Amino acid sequence: MGALTELDDRAIDALHEQAAISYGTFKKREVRLNMARGKPALGQLDLVERLLDLPGRGNHVAHDGTDCRNYGGMEGLAEARALYARLIGARPENTMVGGNSSLALMHDNIVYSMLKGNPSSPLPWNRAGRIRFLCPTPGYDYHFNMTEEYGIQMISVPLGEDGPDMDRVEALVAEDAAIKGMWCVPKYSNPTGAVYSDAVIERLARMPAAAPDFRIFWDNAYIMHHLTEERIETANLLTACERAGNPDRALMFMSTSKITFPGAGLAVFASSETNMRWFLASASRRSIGPDKINQLRHMCALPDESALYALMDQYRAIIAPKFDAVYGTFDRLLGDPRVATWTRPKGGYFISLYADGCARRTVELAGEAGIALTPTGAAFPYRNDPDDRHIRVAPTTLSADEVGLAAEGIALAVRLAASEREKARRSLRVT
Amino acid sequence: MGALTELDDRAIDALHEQAAISYGTFKKREVRLNMARGKPALGQLDLVERLLDLPGRGNHVAHDGTDCRNYGGMEGLAEARALYARLIGARPENTMVGGNSSLALMHDNIVYSMLKGNPSSPLPWNRAGRIRFLCPTPGYDYHFNMTEEYGIQMISVPLGEDGPDMDRVEALVAEDAAIKGMWCVPKYSNPTGAVYSDAVIERLARMPAAAPDFRIFWDNAYIMHHLTEERIETANLLTACERAGNPDRALMFMSTSKITFPGAGLAVFASSETNMRWFLASASRRSIGPDKINQLRHMCALPDESALYALMDQYRAIIAPKFDAVYGTFDRLLGDPRVATWTRPKGGYFISLYADGCARRTVELAGEAGIALTPTGAAFPYRNDPDDRHIRVAPTTLSADEVGLAAEGIALAVRLAASEREKARRSLRVT
Repeated sequence: MGALTELDDRAIDALHEQAAISYGTFKKREVRLNMARGKPALGQLDLVERLLDLPGRGNHVAHDGTDCRNYGGMEGLAEARALYARLIGARPENTMVGGNSSLALMHDNIVYSMLKGNPSSPLPWNRAGRIRFLCPTPGYDYHFNMTEEYGIQMISVPLGEDGPDMDRVEALVAEDAAIKGMWCVPKYSNPTGAVYSDAVIERLARMPAAAPDFRIFWDNAYIMHHLTEERIETANLLTACERAGNPDRALMFMSTSKITFPGAGLAVFASSETNMRWFLASASRRSIGPDKINQLRHMCALPDESALYALMDQYRAIIAPKFDAVYGTFDRLLGDPRVATWTRPKGGYFISLYADGCARRTVELAGEAGIALTPTGAAFPYRNDPDDRHIRVAPTTLSADEVGLAAEGIALAVRLAASEREKARRSLRVT
Repeated sequence: MGALTELDDRAIDALHEQAAISYGTFKKREVRLNMARGKPALGQLDLVERLLDLPGRGNHVAHDGTDCRNYGGMEGLAEARALYARLIGARPENTMVGGNSSLALMHDNIVYSMLKGNPSSPLPWNRAGRIRFLCPTPGYDYHFNMTEEYGIQMISVPLGEDGPDMDRVEALVAEDAAIKGMWCVPKYSNPTGAVYSDAVIERLARMPAAAPDFRIFWDNAYIMHHLTEERIETANLLTACERAGNPDRALMFMSTSKITFPGAGLAVFASSETNMRWFLASASRRSIGPDKINQLRHMCALPDESALYALMDQYRAIIAPKFDAVYGTFDRLLGDPRVATWTRPKGGYFISLYADGCARRTVELAGEAGIALTPTGAAFPYRNDPDDRHIRVAPTTLSADEVGLAAEGIALAVRLAASEREKARRSLRVT
């Protein structure tokens, strides 16, 4: 299973010739498949279809007597806060359930910090000169686009299998008071599937920060989205930060976007008492409260952790075979010679495929063969993948058969792109 | 029906003595009623209880084939946009349906303008020095609190029965480039019930503005919330602005908060093509899209204008008698002598009661007698009612009987406060 560089010129020529033929044959099949986004499949959505009948006529009162049909309750329903607080790892009084999008809660944390400063800020962020966020990469494009939108400078730090390069993170955060924030997807990260180790989380909690108002945006989007029987639990950043004397550092988020219905689910935000008081007061200038009926609806359908875990197991039975279909195809077509490498995440929604120096060409070729992929560079600040190597593969939306077909198209595109590149490299060397 | 000032000293003494006795007797009844906010009554909410069963299992596809259970569609469902565009007075492509709160859509317009500038801004608002909003008063406290939150200076302009004092508005907007916005509740305004005349709306559309990025925040919260058989229609600000060559001036909002469920309804925003493109792009950094299921649910329950109007007629049958209960009590207790004046709006959720120089004392006395009212000053920028005269009365939440009782408590409090004040004024004069 050698790399392409280890093959002799004749073998490269043969590989390229064969890759061009296979790719051409695939292209003639006129496949049209979209693998660009991590959307749940219809079969997943069908499993929570009962939400569409709920909470049911006459059922509009929460446990504490709140009529969910009227105004108020910015912090969310007590029973929803209690359940999601346990999941996210916070006390109910430090947890709010609000809106349909955890991304929006992250956004509003940034916006309120820009315009007013967070509770630890000497100045509003937008009057503090150029500010910066650390961005472990590859990462989530929506995070980076949001930061870019508000002119926050992004600094990439490499993301390994157990979290970001902490030597780098510690040095930057300790020295640069302009670094106000850091994006993290701590479990089954989008897109590599990395899981932050306890040691990394402890260092994130303890590290000295030059900015007193430094915040970690802890996007636990895949908190219970396991792909194996192992339910990986990560250390609790909020309590680690408390113990380390940095109680206001952690802003933790999750949502049911990939548990119930994307867009019609619940979003959750947990943090210190100080941060929650500030955020709720700020949010109370923006609206009078969240959709409590939807919270009640969710509590009817999924009243406790065991109901949620049972549902996630059903999802796993749908999703895991799709990931396996990708692995099988990649093993077969990209394993020998080793044309590319890829992750085998234990959870989440994505596989990262690494094709050094030819990611852009691969995505282009795949697109021409009818397989739409996330644009290259999307997983990097300013859409710049310095090594042109990362490709995000999103197996969930398509059927398992379609996933196998799409993976084949991608693999054939990688083979052609990589052999083209290796040929070109050698011809340059000869010249 | 003379004013208090026309009574002789003896009559004032007698009035005060009798008012103190009546108030004391009322206080002993230990009433506990809350009239502070304009919330729908439970009887109203019961009329849309069917929403709690909808859209119903198996019903998750919009007219254009969109599966409402998955991500996307920031602009809202096509059928919801078409319906609410007709109501708000815009083209569907210039209308978005999103979220549960029109206040949030106003907020986000401000926040994006602060941080990035709107499409007409030479600079983001937060880099344009001190900026200002015009605030017709009495007005809506949530508008003023939001503006204050972001350090936007508020300038009061008097609101008459047919809209704000336009001579003042035109002069200010023409001269002061720091005036970037203006709050308006054009129909059945909160809290006076004012309805902007066509002439006022035409002047708002035409007036020259020193700031190229000046915007009118047109909060049509009571767009179909009539209290009489007359369905008052106001002129269309958006088309008036287009005709006047100020196509991007109007930002129009409405919601179903007081049509279906507050907090679990739909919010609507309509504006020029330029503004909509800008807002949707900005909002797409904040979240992936709105709750389309809730839009589908609303379209099932209330598919067209006639369904909406029929529902609003049912509401009117519930609400109008509550307003009448207030008028009856006020006429009886405050009419002769003329202790106070009040509005008789043709729609909306509030009555404004004017008790010159003793609003604060009235609300205090009412509170001590168990009637909770909106804090005085709430209808004014910085909570400052310069004449201490405005009291907001919110009859909708309580039953008609309770409303009558609460109105009695308020009226007795006004009588006591006004006669106290008149006595004090005369004793000062004597000294």
